[in-house]
Amino acid sequence: MKKICLLGATGSVGGNTLDVIQNHSEQFSLVGFSFNQNIVRAREIIRDFKPKFVTAGNPQFAQDLKHDFPEITVFSGLEGLVELASTDYDLILTAVMGSVGLHATIRAIELKRQIAIANKETLVMAGDFITALAKQNKVPLLTVDSEHSAILQCLQGVRREDVASVTITASGGSFRDRTRAELEGVTVEDALNHPNWSMGQKITIDSATMVNKGLEVIEAHFLFDLPYNQIKTILHRESVVHSMITMKDGASFAELGANDMRQPIQYALTYPNHLKIYNKKSFDLAEIGQLHFEAMDFQRFPMLALAYQVGEQGGSYPTVYNAANEIAVSAFLQGKITFLEIEQLITEAVETHQEVTDLDIDKIIRIDEETRVRVSRKIR
Amino acid sequence: MKKICLLGATGSVGGNTLDVIQNHSEQFSLVGFSFNQNIVRAREIIRDFKPKFVTAGNPQFAQDLKHDFPEITVFSGLEGLVELASTDYDLILTAVMGSVGLHATIRAIELKRQIAIANKETLVMAGDFITALAKQNKVPLLTVDSEHSAILQCLQGVRREDVASVTITASGGSFRDRTRAELEGVTVEDALNHPNWSMGQKITIDSATMVNKGLEVIEAHFLFDLPYNQIKTILHRESVVHSMITMKDGASFAELGANDMRQPIQYALTYPNHLKIYNKKSFDLAEIGQLHFEAMDFQRFPMLALAYQVGEQGGSYPTVYNAANEIAVSAFLQGKITFLEIEQLITEAVETHQEVTDLDIDKIIRIDEETRVRVSRKIR
Repeated sequence: MKKICLLGATGSVGGNTLDVIQNHSEQFSLVGFSFNQNIVRAREIIRDFKPKFVTAGNPQFAQDLKHDFPEITVFSGLEGLVELASTDYDLILTAVMGSVGLHATIRAIELKRQIAIANKETLVMAGDFITALAKQNKVPLLTVDSEHSAILQCLQGVRREDVASVTITASGGSFRDRTRAELEGVTVEDALNHPNWSMGQKITIDSATMVNKGLEVIEAHFLFDLPYNQIKTILHRESVVHSMITMKDGASFAELGANDMRQPIQYALTYPNHLKIYNKKSFDLAEIGQLHFEAMDFQRFPMLALAYQVGEQGGSYPTVYNAANEIAVSAFLQGKITFLEIEQLITEAVETHQEVTDLDIDKIIRIDEETRVRVSRKIR
Repeated sequence: MKKICLLGATGSVGGNTLDVIQNHSEQFSLVGFSFNQNIVRAREIIRDFKPKFVTAGNPQFAQDLKHDFPEITVFSGLEGLVELASTDYDLILTAVMGSVGLHATIRAIELKRQIAIANKETLVMAGDFITALAKQNKVPLLTVDSEHSAILQCLQGVRREDVASVTITASGGSFRDRTRAELEGVTVEDALNHPNWSMGQKITIDSATMVNKGLEVIEAHFLFDLPYNQIKTILHRESVVHSMITMKDGASFAELGANDMRQPIQYALTYPNHLKIYNKKSFDLAEIGQLHFEAMDFQRFPMLALAYQVGEQGGSYPTVYNAANEIAVSAFLQGKITFLEIEQLITEAVETHQEVTDLDIDKIIRIDEETRVRVSRKIR
């Protein structure tokens, strides 16, 4: 029985993870989870999975749960995530939004637990640090992003030295058929209407700006230890090919299938095996009929070009890119800025960033916080 | 230095194999080869590769070569193939047409050499026998057919028990856009005009009748030890996806790339690695733009349906299917029968076949020969 700890249980990835755990209850048990705001769903999860540890988003929720479920140890807040990550489990899946998963991930690596990252911001913000720590503790970093999982799956059968490049597919997001001029005045509702995937709000906006693909390029750099010129992106509107790798002999391997997050999640939990998924979405390539591929347009999607740039610059630049994006997206979702102002805020933050050298985790966190303050001040 | 023996050096696969050997002359040397009729090319190969052993298609050619190249041991005819297969080498690649490769393949397996099969007829004709012999001698059967190589490549990273099915892609051949009514009166020249691949004549006709895909289904059954209901076929006009596998969790893996036979050939020679290929064809999915997939139409391609049928029947049936096809295709190429009569001859041969039980290799060879005689007699 593999004991699972799940950070972010009430979100989209969290729900799919619970489904996987339930489907393979002979193999997995949920020993702990965290949630931020959705206490109604948290109570259901406690009743259904009977975990030992829960971290609530705030102390009031924690108090309520302690009262109703005295058999459970309840933590709260950011420190509560680290306390949760310090408990007894085999694998931690970090599906919390944004950079809040960083400290918990670090703790889990130090404890040499299996890590499944659904939280790409952790790697983008502190990739050098996290990958060095993982290497030092001999902890493999698994991933449940469908693109990176596809690459991880494809990489299983080959020697790393034979890999020429990886190619991350991009659906193009909610606004893929609009020109840049047509992005003026788009609404939050428009942006949240993703054509292929049902996901959380932040990642849906990130898809529309292509920041999500930018974060994925940086994540791929760290996860697979690849230089940026070996990380390609391609527009693929159907999202059927989740990503691919290309070998030195010209053979490419693609992982494709239904857009069902349970596949990459279960793969991380059962790595490197492919167990049966119950009630899985049907997938018939003949029914789909056509797959389209288009060269990435970096003029249309300047945030992806910027991601390659900050990736190549390295050091503290990806941290700034990520932090600025989190603040800008949050402001957009609150109706405080327009869609195109997301791009402006990120670009400005990167351009005005004074590079910090000799990075350590404290410096990274300070840069992250400073960037958030800096960007927030620009928002009316 | 891996010593290569090449059966069928002057054909299409043979030429590509020589190219691979030349490209990686630091790893491979050609120690022996066979040819049937093209003595001009055979002389070039001898000069370029300096092999120790050569088998000529007939004694006269053998005499000529012995005279001109006294340092080389020259064999001839079918026995000469077995003599060649008995020499000193590490890997034998059998790219001879039709069933003539059978005895040489058996000898190579008995000698526990690495086997790379480009000769699918061997496996179709005597699959039970060959696979049992290979198992007994612990010899893995590699393949250089692009479809089977794609499956072999995809299978590397996964547990066999997690595989749900394999899917062989089919371009549809020269007549894919014609109805059955439009197949009346097509010429040999029409049939030889394959849309995607430049191949030998027999395999090009086999593509047009879909017998080739039928042989591949049976070959896959033997190579990968899969029941027929786990071997699917799909129409894919671009031949960009060379074939794919589907896992129990719904993930599919496809191998895709340029239509360059050197990739699967080199893969068999360097298995399981993917070394660089020099001057390889460029491959850009964005440039290709679209991939099309269509459910296989078994009414349109009855020879594929028949292949599944003889495969399921097993025993001596696939032998009959293959032998009848070889005679029929040869008669079509000689202008003796029409295109649709190929189908009729094969169907008749299978329908009138009296099943033979307790098969051994001698019985298989007798069935093969009897079928050839039987079908030949039907041809005016």
